Amino acid sequence: MTADDSGPGPSPAVPPAELRPRQARALFRRGVRTPTAGYCAGYAQANLIAVPRDLAYDVLLFAQRNPKSCPVLDVTEPGDTRASIFAGDLRTDLPAYRVYANGVVVAEPGDVGDVWRRDLVSFLIGCSFTFEAPMVRAGIPLRHLETGGNIAMFRTDRPCRPAGRLRGPLVVTMRPIPADRVADAVRISSRYPAVHGAPVHVGDPAALGIADLDRPDFGDPVEVRPGEIPVFWACGVTPQAAVMASAPEFAISHAPGHMAVTDVRDTDYQVP
Amino acid sequence: MTADDSGPGPSPAVPPAELRPRQARALFRRGVRTPTAGYCAGYAQANLIAVPRDLAYDVLLFAQRNPKSCPVLDVTEPGDTRASIFAGDLRTDLPAYRVYANGVVVAEPGDVGDVWRRDLVSFLIGCSFTFEAPMVRAGIPLRHLETGGNIAMFRTDRPCRPAGRLRGPLVVTMRPIPADRVADAVRISSRYPAVHGAPVHVGDPAALGIADLDRPDFGDPVEVRPGEIPVFWACGVTPQAAVMASAPEFAISHAPGHMAVTDVRDTDYQVP
Repeated sequence: MTADDSGPGPSPAVPPAELRPRQARALFRRGVRTPTAGYCAGYAQANLIAVPRDLAYDVLLFAQRNPKSCPVLDVTEPGDTRASIFAGDLRTDLPAYRVYANGVVVAEPGDVGDVWRRDLVSFLIGCSFTFEAPMVRAGIPLRHLETGGNIAMFRTDRPCRPAGRLRGPLVVTMRPIPADRVADAVRISSRYPAVHGAPVHVGDPAALGIADLDRPDFGDPVEVRPGEIPVFWACGVTPQAAVMASAPEFAISHAPGHMAVTDVRDTDYQVP
Repeated sequence: MTADDSGPGPSPAVPPAELRPRQARALFRRGVRTPTAGYCAGYAQANLIAVPRDLAYDVLLFAQRNPKSCPVLDVTEPGDTRASIFAGDLRTDLPAYRVYANGVVVAEPGDVGDVWRRDLVSFLIGCSFTFEAPMVRAGIPLRHLETGGNIAMFRTDRPCRPAGRLRGPLVVTMRPIPADRVADAVRISSRYPAVHGAPVHVGDPAALGIADLDRPDFGDPVEVRPGEIPVFWACGVTPQAAVMASAPEFAISHAPGHMAVTDVRDTDYQVP
């Protein structure tokens, strides 16, 4: 079978990159639990942070003040389970979630239907997985795609600008890039400002307060080989780090690396 | 005297374009009432909309959903009279304000100290005056600068995406551009996405529902001469049109064309 919207549905025979968003979401709804890097090539992926309505202004203001890490792609009405860029069900169609109570992860379920609340406002925030397909097309190797593991994410020592009750550190993803392709990786990612854009840092983890690249705060370790440079992009897990640092009563997020696959083409977020 | 921050203060002898923001704000604080196009060349200007805290989420969400007309440059804490990009007093240092009660303009004073409220959140929103200096440097004539009048602004028939209690039409500025410079005007303005960026429309006012270019909804009429094309940019008066259409209890704005002159260089909002 082919990855065609008119088909009977997803099949393990279809490579993840060739799945349509609707098909990938159906897989995740049925219980497939996997990082989504490499899924649905050509479609934007998004971070989810859902908070009670009375915290929504603080989240939106935090995003406005920290646009590099928190580029807002969509905001739902309170209680809505669908977003304008995501024609699935936000409660079930991501591969894994985190449920936060007072800033602590209390569950990491495959769906959040049982803890969903009618006052939750969902924010979909740009994800750097979105520009990985153009990087791969340009021949830039991305190790987490080759190994099938999750990407490596780190808390930095850079504080975000606080907003209302929210404060916390910048979180970054790290990709090892061959030294002779770093400029290309910068050039390509900088054309996608709505999904974190250009790197925030190149080459020196210590300068971001990252002590050990082998021990990411989220996701899996990714080896940096000789001749490769660790390149750091702002990450949409930053709002989760703010929830952990600020301890609001309740929040739901995606599990890091297990994103919302949207119906929007990555090219829609590309600038000239 | 020269336009120097160390000087004794503003003087009518200094051309408006050469004033520093601090000097222009002092002039306005002392009662000078003038459109600010052409003031403080090289510094960004901003639209002001200040609303009670309980409407602030709707304004911020309206801006997120209508980024072309409402690019948010800064948001204050409730009651603050200073913003991170504006080292003056938001209550006195713009040349003219509008005070709205239930969506109706009830006053157009030179300062708003007497009606200021401690629950007001101020939003500074990008203004297309910001990219006029680079357009002038490129030799593109801008008639409202030559005549010293206000720019022409129009309500369109394009609805904005509503947010909470706020809905309303897109408002645009119009500049007549010589036909052989339209491409340059597009190219230059598109490098400033945070201050409305590229035009939303070129050449056909009727397509935006504008019946008569000689009767702007805000500002002054600007003549379109033979060989010139009317070019339309999204305008930061759009939140004021939303206030007029949605009739919240209270709001304060700048008077159209009478902007907040910020301390930020226009180049800070330029993309490559």
